[in-house]
Amino acid sequence: MTWKRTQELDKMKWIKKYVSKSTRQKDLDEQRLFKSFAFVVLLGQVFGIMPLSDACGPHEHCIYFKWKSWKVLYTLLVVVGSVFCGWSTIYHMANHGSTMGLVSAVMFYLNSIVVHLLFVSLAKDWAHLMREWSAVDIGMRSYGWPSNLDARLKITSVIILSFATSEHLLSAIQNFVRAINCRNTIAEIFEYFFVNLAYPQVFSSITYSIGIGVTLQVITLISTFSWTYIDLFIILISSALALRFRQVSDRMESYLQAAVAVREIKPRQPLQLSDIVLWRNLREDYNRLSKLCRILNEHISYIVLVSFGSNLFFILVQFFNSLKPIRNTTEMVYFYFSFGFLIGRTICVSLYGSWIHDESQKFIPLLNSVPSTIYNIEVRRFVLHVGIETISLTGKKFFNVTRSIVLSIAGTIVTYELVLIQFYGGQIQKSGNETYGC
Amino acid sequence: MTWKRTQELDKMKWIKKYVSKSTRQKDLDEQRLFKSFAFVVLLGQVFGIMPLSDACGPHEHCIYFKWKSWKVLYTLLVVVGSVFCGWSTIYHMANHGSTMGLVSAVMFYLNSIVVHLLFVSLAKDWAHLMREWSAVDIGMRSYGWPSNLDARLKITSVIILSFATSEHLLSAIQNFVRAINCRNTIAEIFEYFFVNLAYPQVFSSITYSIGIGVTLQVITLISTFSWTYIDLFIILISSALALRFRQVSDRMESYLQAAVAVREIKPRQPLQLSDIVLWRNLREDYNRLSKLCRILNEHISYIVLVSFGSNLFFILVQFFNSLKPIRNTTEMVYFYFSFGFLIGRTICVSLYGSWIHDESQKFIPLLNSVPSTIYNIEVRRFVLHVGIETISLTGKKFFNVTRSIVLSIAGTIVTYELVLIQFYGGQIQKSGNETYGC
Amino acid sequence: MTWKRTQELDKMKWIKKYVSKSTRQKDLDEQRLFKSFAFVVLLGQVFGIMPLSDACGPHEHCIYFKWKSWKVLYTLLVVVGSVFCGWSTIYHMANHGSTMGLVSAVMFYLNSIVVHLLFVSLAKDWAHLMREWSAVDIGMRSYGWPSNLDARLKITSVIILSFATSEHLLSAIQNFVRAINCRNTIAEIFEYFFVNLAYPQVFSSITYSIGIGVTLQVITLISTFSWTYIDLFIILISSALALRFRQVSDRMESYLQAAVAVREIKPRQPLQLSDIVLWRNLREDYNRLSKLCRILNEHISYIVLVSFGSNLFFILVQFFNSLKPIRNTTEMVYFYFSFGFLIGRTICVSLYGSWIHDESQKFIPLLNSVPSTIYNIEVRRFVLHVGIETISLTGKKFFNVTRSIVLSIAGTIVTYELVLIQFYGGQIQKSGNETYGC
Amino acid sequence: MTWKRTQELDKMKWIKKYVSKSTRQKDLDEQRLFKSFAFVVLLGQVFGIMPLSDACGPHEHCIYFKWKSWKVLYTLLVVVGSVFCGWSTIYHMANHGSTMGLVSAVMFYLNSIVVHLLFVSLAKDWAHLMREWSAVDIGMRSYGWPSNLDARLKITSVIILSFATSEHLLSAIQNFVRAINCRNTIAEIFEYFFVNLAYPQVFSSITYSIGIGVTLQVITLISTFSWTYIDLFIILISSALALRFRQVSDRMESYLQAAVAVREIKPRQPLQLSDIVLWRNLREDYNRLSKLCRILNEHISYIVLVSFGSNLFFILVQFFNSLKPIRNTTEMVYFYFSFGFLIGRTICVSLYGSWIHDESQKFIPLLNSVPSTIYNIEVRRFVLHVGIETISLTGKKFFNVTRSIVLSIAGTIVTYELVLIQFYGGQIQKSGNETYGC
Repeated sequence: MTWKRTQELDKMKWIKKYVSKSTRQKDLDEQRLFKSFAFVVLLGQVFGIMPLSDACGPHEHCIYFKWKSWKVLYTLLVVVGSVFCGWSTIYHMANHGSTMGLVSAVMFYLNSIVVHLLFVSLAKDWAHLMREWSAVDIGMRSYGWPSNLDARLKITSVIILSFATSEHLLSAIQNFVRAINCRNTIAEIFEYFFVNLAYPQVFSSITYSIGIGVTLQVITLISTFSWTYIDLFIILISSALALRFRQVSDRMESYLQAAVAVREIKPRQPLQLSDIVLWRNLREDYNRLSKLCRILNEHISYIVLVSFGSNLFFILVQFFNSLKPIRNTTEMVYFYFSFGFLIGRTICVSLYGSWIHDESQKFIPLLNSVPSTIYNIEVRRFVLHVGIETISLTGKKFFNVTRSIVLSIAGTIVTYELVLIQFYGGQIQKSGNETYGC
Repeated sequence: MTWKRTQELDKMKWIKKYVSKSTRQKDLDEQRLFKSFAFVVLLGQVFGIMPLSDACGPHEHCIYFKWKSWKVLYTLLVVVGSVFCGWSTIYHMANHGSTMGLVSAVMFYLNSIVVHLLFVSLAKDWAHLMREWSAVDIGMRSYGWPSNLDARLKITSVIILSFATSEHLLSAIQNFVRAINCRNTIAEIFEYFFVNLAYPQVFSSITYSIGIGVTLQVITLISTFSWTYIDLFIILISSALALRFRQVSDRMESYLQAAVAVREIKPRQPLQLSDIVLWRNLREDYNRLSKLCRILNEHISYIVLVSFGSNLFFILVQFFNSLKPIRNTTEMVYFYFSFGFLIGRTICVSLYGSWIHDESQKFIPLLNSVPSTIYNIEVRRFVLHVGIETISLTGKKFFNVTRSIVLSIAGTIVTYELVLIQFYGGQIQKSGNETYGC
Repeated sequence: MTWKRTQELDKMKWIKKYVSKSTRQKDLDEQRLFKSFAFVVLLGQVFGIMPLSDACGPHEHCIYFKWKSWKVLYTLLVVVGSVFCGWSTIYHMANHGSTMGLVSAVMFYLNSIVVHLLFVSLAKDWAHLMREWSAVDIGMRSYGWPSNLDARLKITSVIILSFATSEHLLSAIQNFVRAINCRNTIAEIFEYFFVNLAYPQVFSSITYSIGIGVTLQVITLISTFSWTYIDLFIILISSALALRFRQVSDRMESYLQAAVAVREIKPRQPLQLSDIVLWRNLREDYNRLSKLCRILNEHISYIVLVSFGSNLFFILVQFFNSLKPIRNTTEMVYFYFSFGFLIGRTICVSLYGSWIHDESQKFIPLLNSVPSTIYNIEVRRFVLHVGIETISLTGKKFFNVTRSIVLSIAGTIVTYELVLIQFYGGQIQKSGNETYGC
Repeated sequence: MTWKRTQELDKMKWIKKYVSKSTRQKDLDEQRLFKSFAFVVLLGQVFGIMPLSDACGPHEHCIYFKWKSWKVLYTLLVVVGSVFCGWSTIYHMANHGSTMGLVSAVMFYLNSIVVHLLFVSLAKDWAHLMREWSAVDIGMRSYGWPSNLDARLKITSVIILSFATSEHLLSAIQNFVRAINCRNTIAEIFEYFFVNLAYPQVFSSITYSIGIGVTLQVITLISTFSWTYIDLFIILISSALALRFRQVSDRMESYLQAAVAVREIKPRQPLQLSDIVLWRNLREDYNRLSKLCRILNEHISYIVLVSFGSNLFFILVQFFNSLKPIRNTTEMVYFYFSFGFLIGRTICVSLYGSWIHDESQKFIPLLNSVPSTIYNIEVRRFVLHVGIETISLTGKKFFNVTRSIVLSIAGTIVTYELVLIQFYGGQIQKSGNETYGC
């Protein structure tokens, strides 16, 4: 046993020599994904998403979920509010006929409800998932912490959220400008804003009060945010996992370069026994990450499904709306900003989501380049592993999130748009003739 | 030989230690799939499906099929009735022009005819199929009976059939309400129901009598049922097979956990020889199930084809009908209930059908996680087996029933719907102007 | 060397014991595919297809092609005739505007030209292809001649050609009936038939004479035949190859059953060394057939491409025509018979073409079922061979001819039909208003 | 070490014996891809593409890129000009409404901008790419230079560029003929040509001068060229790589034939040890080419994406334009020549691009045909390598450039065309009513 230990240490030194990144041991022991992810969770909680309770500080055993907490209550209130908004829209639709706009409003609130509920479910499993992830973090200590992971997560969040905020502000401003043009006093402006522009379907059944209006606006704000948050969440967690895969492939590459270098100087001599241990460790690291990817997938595949589904739906709607005549510049700027943001976000989710798969594919050429002198049973198993098992996020196994999904989405949008035009095409003319008065 | 026997027994004990489910030997010996499935067969026979003769009680050698039996006669009568209904509709169509409604009526009866004939053909092979299955049941005695298999089959049947019954009742009630509004006496109501609402195409060529009306109604009832039964059948038989696959993967998982546990305590020592026997047995069990899946597929792949084909067709028709204006609430409730049931059933068939494939895919990560110490030639063969051979039901090999089929169906529906609208779009306007009087 | 020979003979005996089909040695030595295929070649030559010269009787070295022969001249005359027909239609189109009917007439003659030229090219390589095939026939003598191959080829040809003849007769009859209704004397009837019904586009530029009319009719007949012949040819040659694959898989199955039987009686004893030779021979037979399939594919992949392309095109056209109102029963019968024949033929080509692939897929489960005791390096290579190389006909590598192609064709037709309706939809109304007088 | 050298030389002789192509050593040492490709680079530089600086003559270390050079300035001027043209078209569109023609003009200039910028980026990496390629050229000296590579590159370039020139000339002539019909003096003709026909969108905002007109014409010429150049570039570089793959597969084939020949004479005796070295070298050559393909792909995958994207877009536009009535013969000839050239070019890019993949697929049957006597671990690795890794160009990994892409493009065009007709269909009627006066 001690002999094996010594071997292990020898190998470690050798790795350190060829793998450039040096890491301070102390920092490493303290770095875990759930810490880097804490701010994402906190951010969600502001909007009622992922109502985790934090018990005893930064340790994975401190993450837990309890039903009886203010956070869960908050989430449930948001869900109730969204249900109310959605239901009053359906009620309105039943009485006044359905239009594309109303259908998409219902879908908007439905999306918010589903997202909040899915994250409650994820919150319950979060502790488990993070414990698994921490185990991988510990097992991969020798790799160091993925370079710039924390910075990456934060910068991505800031960029996407600032776009989302701009989009929401633009929407509000555009409506307020319209309201100001039509009414004079502030109270009237707010009433016009709430009753005529923002929630006509709600206030056609209940009487207006400023309190209800503000509450509705808050619920809409949260719903809008939750719609962006789901995409952001997938992007961030995929990045974290993909960077781990990259670490393993980077190490394998450095091995290969070392092997080639060594072979050129004195062939067939060193690393004879240690070799197989090195490759086994790589394979086991890869296997551990594959397993983590599967576990992650089990927990978030409904979230992936909802994310892709809702983005697809709203792109279809916006694409359809782009056929209608646009009435003024403010509206046009808002429309194209909002549409562009939506498309950009969808592409980002697809590309970041498929990053995991991309990284896993990088192993194939590396393994095929292993020199014959150091080719062994572990390399062969590794080749079969990578060749036979597809590592990627999936939308509940209905589709794999790989790069080709972008073209599939484009094709799907085009085909479904044709049906939409067949069904609702008549409304374009009507809306074109609408007057745009107060 | 005796040495091998001892080995086998040793292994058995070891398995019992790690594989938790204990099973009473007596029960096991009596459990066979054909017994669990007996109620499904019986259920079908009420509606003229699968006219098996039962000779000597609960034993697979007692299942047989003979042409000269009351059950076959019943089936043939149903087929003749359906042919009559279908033919009179075609005759009506030739004289009065085809509409979507008439075309779908023809398809409805055609579906019934094909289903009944396919099940006669399956009945002939049922004994053979069940014998194969019993062989697997016996070979897998050590796994115990899949937990809750019988309960699962029964609950699924009850749920789906009660939906089907509700749907049929709703349809009848809706028509009777219309008839009651238009006529006064019971006889007149029935006549109106049969002649004007249910079978105008039949009674335009033959004269009405209450007997014929009731007979037609019975045939329609059986046809409706057979349409649901085919889906139910696929769901149930897929579940039974998928649960068997799950047993093998569960055992493999328990082996792996045991192996890991053992390795941590005293590495490289125990299970040395027995190992390869364990893995060979697993592989052979998997292979036996693969073979059973192939045999099953040979027998029911036409049934799968018809199930998917007819569901696709009727979803297209219903989707098309959803474009027409709906005239009152009863009709709306019925329409959406019926459409929802149809879509739900199609999704269920797809998901349960692809369950077999899902379970077979679970082996890949497990096999890739086998520790290097116990990796052997049998594991390697197993990896290649799972990687190269696709285990799934197929629609006569035209398509594999995997999860991605749901999205394919959705895409196909959208594309085909476009053609349908191009061809029959004019009828929507016409039907919109129809008066709804008596 | 002699030792190996003895081994070979020993194995042979063993094979004979387990492989049931006994074959008379004399017959075997005389059976070659090119002989079984001779009648197909002859049949083609009647219509100017595959102008092979036959030098010295039934031997593969006697097949050759020379440019200076009556058969080639005949073929070239047919091509020139088709070019003339096609060109005059294009000329007509340039002057009078294009309609769907004229475009499809051009495609019809173009198809005929391309088919004749492709078969000239195939005729040049026929000797080479048949020599390769004969080598396989000789190498597989021990399998015997595929049962019923010759009968199969003949029956298939008769069925398809009698359908083709009926279709052509129906077309001619239908036109003659129309001509008889409009004119009185026989000369006038023929003139009306040729000038107004069959070739209006030709006789609008040249003056009518009965000789030209008959010549045109002969060219059309040959073109129609060549369109069917190409499908028939693919069906027949695929069957011949698929049956060879089946022989190998049948033998493998009989080996497996023997192995299982043997294992149950006295395990691990017999066939120890001979085993690997048996499996190597099987693998080499499979490999030889794979190679033959590749060579075949190189020679006929343009033919496959043209067959699928033209069938797709004419289905699109006929599907489009089905939208036009049909004027009387004769026309309707002809239209649906012709359309049904076209669809049936396309499905047949797809299914028979994919038969090769189906047979090659059968090896996977067989190889996975090889018992561990007789698993060896040859079996492993065989598994990889079957798993990695796709054996099938291809349309010039643009698509593989597998079973799933039927659904792809169905999907393609639907999508392309939509475009056709968008482009030519206006002509449906016009043609609906056409009077049907003389 | 010297022993290995001798072995190497022995093997070399053996190879020379069986591999027919003899090559003069001196020529070989001087042949490198970057020399063969020099004329392509030079050709591009005439039109501002790939602004490389050439320092010290024909050596890969002399290729370099510097920002401060006349060539880069030229490129940037072209980009600025294209930006101006594109921008003025967008400005025009904002004021006068968008038509299909204007949108495609914007895309045309955008394409030119993107192509020039991508080639600047490629120029920066060109030295690196060519050094990698030279390393392969050196490593594959024993194969000789691919036969006719230089001639191939030149002939392909000449053919495609002469088509491109004809197309551009036809376009200019067609417009000049129109201008001459409408105006009398040369100055007026030029003014009419520039202001009314070629750049109405530009001269609606700035005043006309002959200098501006000529400059615009030059920019358009360069843009047109760059659009063809991108396709040509992909075709040429794919050919160069594909021919290298073919060399390896040709050598493998000659080995196999030799092996078969040897086996027939005296089995199991010669090449025993050298065998594995031979096969390892083949595998390593294949691996080196795979790696080169990956590196090439990393550098040009955006170029591939832009090439396929722009061709797809312009085919859609031209297909749409084909629906409009054409006004005279000159226009018709130009239109169909231009459309045909576009389609032909797209098919060529697809086929030549997929040539790399085609060649890599050829290894599978060869490896499967390796006789059992010389089958070894290197052959097995080779099989897995070819089976698991897809070697092809990719469009930034969104799609692989394989043969089946042609059918995918056809399908995509049809589907997207449907949407285009839905969106812009109204303009067809309008343009049909346009008068064609001066």
